[in-house]
Amino acid sequence: MVGKRSLTSLHLESLLDKTDIDSIAKQLEPKHEPPVKPYFPNSKVNAHRTNKLWKAIGTAPHPDILDPWTGAHFEHFDGNIENFIGTTKIPLGIAGPLRVNGLFAQGDYPLPLATSEAALVASYHRGACMISAAGGCTSMVVYQALNRAPAFAFDSMRTAGKFVAWAMESFETFQQLANSTTSHGKLVDVGTTLEGNHVYLNFEFTTGDASGQNMVTIATQAVCDFIQKECPVPIRQLYVEGNLSGDKKASSQAYTTTRGRKVTAEVVLTPEILEKYVRATPRQLIDYWRMSAIGGVLSGTMGVHGHFANGLAALYIATGQDAACVAESAMGVTRFEQTPDGDLYASVTLPGIMVGTVGGGTGLPSQKACLQLMGLQGSSNSGALAEVCAGLLLGGELSIIAALATGDFTKAHHKLAR
Amino acid sequence: MVGKRSLTSLHLESLLDKTDIDSIAKQLEPKHEPPVKPYFPNSKVNAHRTNKLWKAIGTAPHPDILDPWTGAHFEHFDGNIENFIGTTKIPLGIAGPLRVNGLFAQGDYPLPLATSEAALVASYHRGACMISAAGGCTSMVVYQALNRAPAFAFDSMRTAGKFVAWAMESFETFQQLANSTTSHGKLVDVGTTLEGNHVYLNFEFTTGDASGQNMVTIATQAVCDFIQKECPVPIRQLYVEGNLSGDKKASSQAYTTTRGRKVTAEVVLTPEILEKYVRATPRQLIDYWRMSAIGGVLSGTMGVHGHFANGLAALYIATGQDAACVAESAMGVTRFEQTPDGDLYASVTLPGIMVGTVGGGTGLPSQKACLQLMGLQGSSNSGALAEVCAGLLLGGELSIIAALATGDFTKAHHKLAR
Amino acid sequence: MVGKRSLTSLHLESLLDKTDIDSIAKQLEPKHEPPVKPYFPNSKVNAHRTNKLWKAIGTAPHPDILDPWTGAHFEHFDGNIENFIGTTKIPLGIAGPLRVNGLFAQGDYPLPLATSEAALVASYHRGACMISAAGGCTSMVVYQALNRAPAFAFDSMRTAGKFVAWAMESFETFQQLANSTTSHGKLVDVGTTLEGNHVYLNFEFTTGDASGQNMVTIATQAVCDFIQKECPVPIRQLYVEGNLSGDKKASSQAYTTTRGRKVTAEVVLTPEILEKYVRATPRQLIDYWRMSAIGGVLSGTMGVHGHFANGLAALYIATGQDAACVAESAMGVTRFEQTPDGDLYASVTLPGIMVGTVGGGTGLPSQKACLQLMGLQGSSNSGALAEVCAGLLLGGELSIIAALATGDFTKAHHKLAR
Amino acid sequence: MVGKRSLTSLHLESLLDKTDIDSIAKQLEPKHEPPVKPYFPNSKVNAHRTNKLWKAIGTAPHPDILDPWTGAHFEHFDGNIENFIGTTKIPLGIAGPLRVNGLFAQGDYPLPLATSEAALVASYHRGACMISAAGGCTSMVVYQALNRAPAFAFDSMRTAGKFVAWAMESFETFQQLANSTTSHGKLVDVGTTLEGNHVYLNFEFTTGDASGQNMVTIATQAVCDFIQKECPVPIRQLYVEGNLSGDKKASSQAYTTTRGRKVTAEVVLTPEILEKYVRATPRQLIDYWRMSAIGGVLSGTMGVHGHFANGLAALYIATGQDAACVAESAMGVTRFEQTPDGDLYASVTLPGIMVGTVGGGTGLPSQKACLQLMGLQGSSNSGALAEVCAGLLLGGELSIIAALATGDFTKAHHKLAR
Repeated sequence: MVGKRSLTSLHLESLLDKTDIDSIAKQLEPKHEPPVKPYFPNSKVNAHRTNKLWKAIGTAPHPDILDPWTGAHFEHFDGNIENFIGTTKIPLGIAGPLRVNGLFAQGDYPLPLATSEAALVASYHRGACMISAAGGCTSMVVYQALNRAPAFAFDSMRTAGKFVAWAMESFETFQQLANSTTSHGKLVDVGTTLEGNHVYLNFEFTTGDASGQNMVTIATQAVCDFIQKECPVPIRQLYVEGNLSGDKKASSQAYTTTRGRKVTAEVVLTPEILEKYVRATPRQLIDYWRMSAIGGVLSGTMGVHGHFANGLAALYIATGQDAACVAESAMGVTRFEQTPDGDLYASVTLPGIMVGTVGGGTGLPSQKACLQLMGLQGSSNSGALAEVCAGLLLGGELSIIAALATGDFTKAHHKLAR
Repeated sequence: MVGKRSLTSLHLESLLDKTDIDSIAKQLEPKHEPPVKPYFPNSKVNAHRTNKLWKAIGTAPHPDILDPWTGAHFEHFDGNIENFIGTTKIPLGIAGPLRVNGLFAQGDYPLPLATSEAALVASYHRGACMISAAGGCTSMVVYQALNRAPAFAFDSMRTAGKFVAWAMESFETFQQLANSTTSHGKLVDVGTTLEGNHVYLNFEFTTGDASGQNMVTIATQAVCDFIQKECPVPIRQLYVEGNLSGDKKASSQAYTTTRGRKVTAEVVLTPEILEKYVRATPRQLIDYWRMSAIGGVLSGTMGVHGHFANGLAALYIATGQDAACVAESAMGVTRFEQTPDGDLYASVTLPGIMVGTVGGGTGLPSQKACLQLMGLQGSSNSGALAEVCAGLLLGGELSIIAALATGDFTKAHHKLAR
Repeated sequence: MVGKRSLTSLHLESLLDKTDIDSIAKQLEPKHEPPVKPYFPNSKVNAHRTNKLWKAIGTAPHPDILDPWTGAHFEHFDGNIENFIGTTKIPLGIAGPLRVNGLFAQGDYPLPLATSEAALVASYHRGACMISAAGGCTSMVVYQALNRAPAFAFDSMRTAGKFVAWAMESFETFQQLANSTTSHGKLVDVGTTLEGNHVYLNFEFTTGDASGQNMVTIATQAVCDFIQKECPVPIRQLYVEGNLSGDKKASSQAYTTTRGRKVTAEVVLTPEILEKYVRATPRQLIDYWRMSAIGGVLSGTMGVHGHFANGLAALYIATGQDAACVAESAMGVTRFEQTPDGDLYASVTLPGIMVGTVGGGTGLPSQKACLQLMGLQGSSNSGALAEVCAGLLLGGELSIIAALATGDFTKAHHKLAR
Repeated sequence: MVGKRSLTSLHLESLLDKTDIDSIAKQLEPKHEPPVKPYFPNSKVNAHRTNKLWKAIGTAPHPDILDPWTGAHFEHFDGNIENFIGTTKIPLGIAGPLRVNGLFAQGDYPLPLATSEAALVASYHRGACMISAAGGCTSMVVYQALNRAPAFAFDSMRTAGKFVAWAMESFETFQQLANSTTSHGKLVDVGTTLEGNHVYLNFEFTTGDASGQNMVTIATQAVCDFIQKECPVPIRQLYVEGNLSGDKKASSQAYTTTRGRKVTAEVVLTPEILEKYVRATPRQLIDYWRMSAIGGVLSGTMGVHGHFANGLAALYIATGQDAACVAESAMGVTRFEQTPDGDLYASVTLPGIMVGTVGGGTGLPSQKACLQLMGLQGSSNSGALAEVCAGLLLGGELSIIAALATGDFTKAHHKLAR
C-alpha cells in the first residue's frame, strides 16, 4: 500500500485500534441528555459576577487565574471582556533597545515581548542589537488605511449598476455621516466590486491612533442606515460587512494594498557587525536568504519572509493590540542582498501592521505599562509604534536567517527551551 | 488629481506638512552617536536578573508588570522566556460549556478565552450555547502531521537527483535517527521538492501530545548531521530548514495538506434554536453565508470563513499555545446550508490547528490552570483539545454570521466595547 | 513503504529500471560536441526565407504546415511572427448565436471557437442556446485598465522615498510623454510600491480597442527614458518592467483589481428552459454549484469557477487574441443561486479579460474573418467583444455544471471524443 | 475627488456620456423578441454539415476559414470539434534547435511555435541558441500524475467518515475498475478531503503518453458507478468531479504537487556566451532576476517567473495540446544565480506541464507534422516532449530577463511588431 492512501489508512487503523466503526459513529452523535447548563452571560466585570462564574464552573477560583493583583483590578478590565474569571499571565521579556530612524519613531526603543516560546526574546534581542550597532534601522510608514466592506444584493445587475452610480454620487454624504460618528477616523475612499447582482463597497478609512476596527464598523453602520433609508433602488439584502474587508485574515487584497499601516524598514550591516553578533559573513546570510525565499515561494506564502508572526504576536500581546490580527499582519517581504561595498543590505516590508496606542487593549494595566516603557502610550504614537514594529521584525529576520545560515538554529532552541 | 496617485500624494503632503523632504531624509539616516547600550542578555529567570534588567531600562519595576504573584513565581517562567521583566496580564473570560462529540473529545467543555477585545467572549459564548442546545457538535481530527523541511544545494541538478535517490534509500536510517531524539515524535513521511540544483526534503512527523516545533527541529537536525557526514555526493549547502515547512505562516502547502491537526466539525440547528438564541431563521444565515463566502473568495483568502483568528488567538493564549501560530492556523472553510428538513447545517474545517497539552507554554501556571479547567491538561489530551478548538470556532462562525445576517453586529460592538 | 515517499521511490525505480544512476547522470550532462547549428534568425516573412528555414530543418516543407493557402498569404503574416515556416490549422466550430444585452454588445452573436478538444464547442453551444432562450444575458464591462510596472533600485529607502515624491509631482509630465507615443492609449493612474530601497511604479493605462501590451510598453519606455535623464536623485537600476504588472500570469493583484477589462454577466433561467436544454432542475445545479465552489476553494484557485480557460482559449485563438493571456484571464467567480421565484440565477465575473479588435493577431486572415462574422472587427468593438466573451463563459459554466450535476459529463466526453 | 472612487466615477461618466442611466438599464434587459434561432448542433464533420452551418450563419463560407486545404481534410477533424466551419490559421515559427539532455529527451530539437505575437519566436530562438551553445540544458521529469476528484455528500460527518473507511478498504477494487477502462492509464493513489459531511476523493493517475483528461474522467466514472451501486452507506449526492482536481485552473494544490508532469531544467552560461548572444554580464541578469522575483512575489503570482505562458501557449498550439491548459501550466519558479566560477546558473521548475504525444489534438495534420519535425510524434515520447518544453521555457526566461536587464525589451517589441 503506497501513497497518501497508505497514510490515511494508517490513521484510520489507529482510530479503530481499540474499537469498531459503529461505536465511533455513536460517539460522534449529538447527545441531548443531560442538557447543558450554559454559564449565565454577563458583560460587567466585578468580583460578584466573577465569583458566580467560578461557582458555575464548579471549582474554587484558581489562584493562578484569579490572583491578588487581578482581584484588585476588576474595574480595569471592564469593557474589554465578558464572563471575566481572571487573567492569563504571559511571560514578558525585554529586547533591545532598538534604534529606529523613522518618519514617526526617532530614538532607542525597549522592545517588550510577551511570549511563552523559548529563544524568541533572545533571537529578537540579538537582531535588535545588530541593528542598533549599525546606527539603527530606517523605518517608514508608507500608507495608512483600514476598511469595512458592506455588501448589497439586488434583483439584477442592472439595479446593482444603478446603485453603484447612486453610491458614487452620494459619497460626500457617506463621508459626512461616517465622519460624524468619530472624531478620529475619516472615510477616505471606496472601492467598488460588482459581482453579478451583488455589490461590495469597500470603504477605506484612516483611524487616527486607534487600530480602529470598531470605529470603522460604527461609521459604516451609519452609512448603511442611510443607504437603507434613502437608496432610490430596491435593495434585497444589506449587510454591514460582506467579508471582503479581509478583517482578521490573510488576504490577497490586503497583501497587495494596505490594512492598518504599510511599513518598510531597512538596515545595512557591515561584515564586522555580522562577525561580532552572529559569526557569519554577508555572503552566508544572502545565500540562505535566496534559498529560503524560493522555499517560501514554493510553499505558497503571501510574500516571503521567515517568521514575522513571532515578533508580531509577542509585541501585539505585550502592548495590548488584538492578537487575532497576527493572522492578517504576518504577510510581506524580507529581502537581503549585498551592497556594492560588500555589506549586507536587509529590508522588510509589511502591508498590514495593525497597531494602535489608544483604544482596545492598550489601556489595560500591564499593556499600558509596556507602551509607557516604550514612550509610545496614548495619542500621536501609533505611527511610531508601527515603525518600531517593522524594525523589530527586521531584527527577527536577521537573527533567524543568521541562525539557519550558520547552523545555530537547533542549538539555540535546544539550549533555551525547557 | 485622481486615482491611487491622488491618495499617495495626500499621504506625502501630510508627511511634508510641517517640514521639508531633506529634513525628513536626515531623520531617516542611521545615527551612530551616542552608541546604543544593549540590555545584557540572559536566559535564566530569577529576581536578581530581572531587577538588573529594570535598572538597565532605567525605571523602577512597574507594579502592573512585576506584580506580587509574578514576583512569587519566577522559577515557573524559566525555560519559556529570556530577559524576563514580568508578565502581561490578559483578561480571561469563560464561554460555554460546549458539548463536543468527537473522536477524542467527549463531554461538556468550559472554554477559557484570553482576549482584550470586547464582544469576543460574548459572541463565542452565544455560539457555544447554541451548539450545546443542539446536543453538541461532532468534531473529528482527520489527520495529524508536522513538518520540517531541510534544504540542500548542489553543483547541478544531476547531483541533486543522485542525492534524492540516496535519501529515499536512506529513509529508514533517517527515521531511526529522528525517532531516537524523542520518545513522543515519529518521522512518518518525506516529500521531495527538486528545484534546479536545490532539494528540499519535507519531513513529516507525528508529535504526540506536544505541538512539537522544537521536537521536529531537533529530530531533523539529527538527520541533517548524518547526511552531512555520510552523504556520498558533495553538498554545497545544507540548512535544517529551507522555509518550505510553512512554520508560522499561512501557506498554500499547509492549506492543502495538514500542519498540526486537520479538524472538521459540524452541527445541525433547528429553526427553534436559532430563533431562541439569535432571533434568525436558517434562511437568513444561509443567505448571508453565501454572500460572505463569495466576499471571502473575492478578497483572496485561503479558504473562506468569518473570523477563525479571534477564537484561535483567545484559546491559544489562554491554554499556553504559541500565539504566533494563529498566522498559520487561521485558514479553512466554513459552510452553511439548509438540510432537507429545513434545519441549518453548519460546518468548519481547519487544516492547521497547532495545539499541544504538554510542552511550550502549557506548563505555565495560569495556562496550566485553564487546561485543567477543561480537563485537558497533560498527555493524551491534545486530540481532544484540537476537537474542542474546532467546536469553539464553529460556534464563533454561527454567532458572527447571525450577527451580520440580522444586523446585530454593530450593536453588539457598540454596547460591549469601551 | 508508505506515503509520498513510496511514490517517489516508485518513480525512481521506473527511471532506473533499465539503467543505473551514473548512466543517467551522464545522459543529463551538457554535451558540447557536435556544436548545434542554430537556424538563421529572420523576422521578414516571405517565401524565400521560409524555404531556407525548411532547408535548415532538413526536410521538405510539410504540406500540412506550408499548405497552398498559407503559401499564398506570406505577406499577411509579416509583423506577427519570426522564423515563419507555415501555419498551424486549428479546427473552428461555431456556437450560438448568443444574445447579449450589454453596455457595448447588443444583439445576437455567433461564437467562433478554435479548439481541438472534443465536446468543447458542443458544451458552449448548449450553454449559449439556454441563455438566448432566456432573452439573452446581461453583460457589463465594469472597468478597463492595463498596467506596466517599471522598477527602480536606489542606494537607500531614503532616496527611494525622495524619488516617489518627485515621481508623484512629475506625473502630469509622465502622462504627456506616455500619451504622446500613442493615439489610442492613455496613462490614467499610478500605483506605488516602496519595498526597502526598491520602487515599483505601477502605471495604469486605457488602451482603446487594442489589447495593448505593446502600446503600454512603448509608452512606459518613454517615461523611463525621461526619468533616466531628468530624475534629481541617483538611480542604481531602472527597468521598464519589474514583473509586478502581472503580464501573462494569474496574480493576486490582477485578481483583486483589473487587467484588461473586468466584466460581469448574468442570466435568469426558468425551470422550463433547464428542463428542455439540460434535463435538470435549478436545485440540482445549485446543489452542485455549492459543492464545486467549495471544491475550488479547497484546491486554492483564484476565484471559483468551472472551466473559464476552455472558452477563453477557444475564443482568443479564433479571434486573434494572445493565447498566452489565458493564463491571466482564467480567474474569477461563478455564482448560482435560486431566485425568489424559483428560477436559476447564474453569473460570472472576470477581472482580466484581455481582448482587442485591432492590433496583435486580430488582423490575420482567418482571425479577422471570425471577428467579421461576429460583427466586431476593427475599432469601437473591443468593449462588446469583452461582453460577448463573458456571456460565452457564462454559457460554458451553465453547461458544464449541468453536465456534472446530472451525470452527463462523462457520457458527453465518451461520445464526442475520438 | 480622489482615490479609486474618482476612477470609478470617471468610468461611469464615460458610460453616461451620451445617454442616461435608464436607457442603459433598458439596454441591459433580457429581450425575448424576436426569438433566437440556434444553429442546429452537429458533431460529425463533413462538407454537407459545414455548408449548412454557413447557411445558418447567413454568409458564404469565408475562404480564409474554409480554405482549400481545410476543405480537403474534413475527415481529419472529426472527433476533435463540433459545429465545424473551417480552421483558424496560426502563424508558425521555428526556433532552435534546442539541445536537451534529459531523462527522456536526448538531442537537438527544433521548436515549432504557433503565435500571432511579434517578437515571441525571436525571443525564444535567442534563448534556445544560448542554451545550445552551452552544450544544452539538463531537463528532468521529476514526477507524473493527473487527477480527478469525485465528490460525495452525506447526511452527516459520521456517515462521511464511514464512507472514507470503506473507500480506503475498497481501493484495490477501484484500481481494477479504473484500470480496466484504459490500457494506458493507471490509478495510483487517492487523496481524501473530508469537509463537514462532504468527501472529495482526489484520484491520482498515470496516463501513459496521453495528456489524459478524458481517460481519467472515464476511469473515475467507472469507479463512481461502482460506488453508487455498492457503497454500504447512503450517499446523498455523487459527482464525478467536485472541482477539486484543478482541471484548467491555476490552483495551490496543483502548484504544490503535480498535475501532468513536474519538470525542472537548468543550464550554466559563461560570460562569453552571454556577451555574444545578449550583450550582458551574469551580474546584470542576476540583479534583474532578483528584483523581478520580488516583483512577482509582490504581485502575488503562484511561483515567480517571467512569461512561461508565452512559450507554453505557442508550443501547446503548435503540437496539438489543449491550449486551455496554459491556465494551469503557467506556474512555477525561475531562479538565476552566480556560480562559484562566475558563470550564470539558471533554472526553471514547473509543476504542471500538460502534454501528450497521442490523443487530443496531437493527431491533427499540422500538429502531427510539428511533432514529427521534433521527432516526438506517437507513443513513448511524452516525457521527452515535457522535458523539451521545460528547456524551451528556460530559454524564454533567459531571453526576456536579458532583454529587460539590458533595456532591449522595448526596442525588440518596437522593431518586430506590426
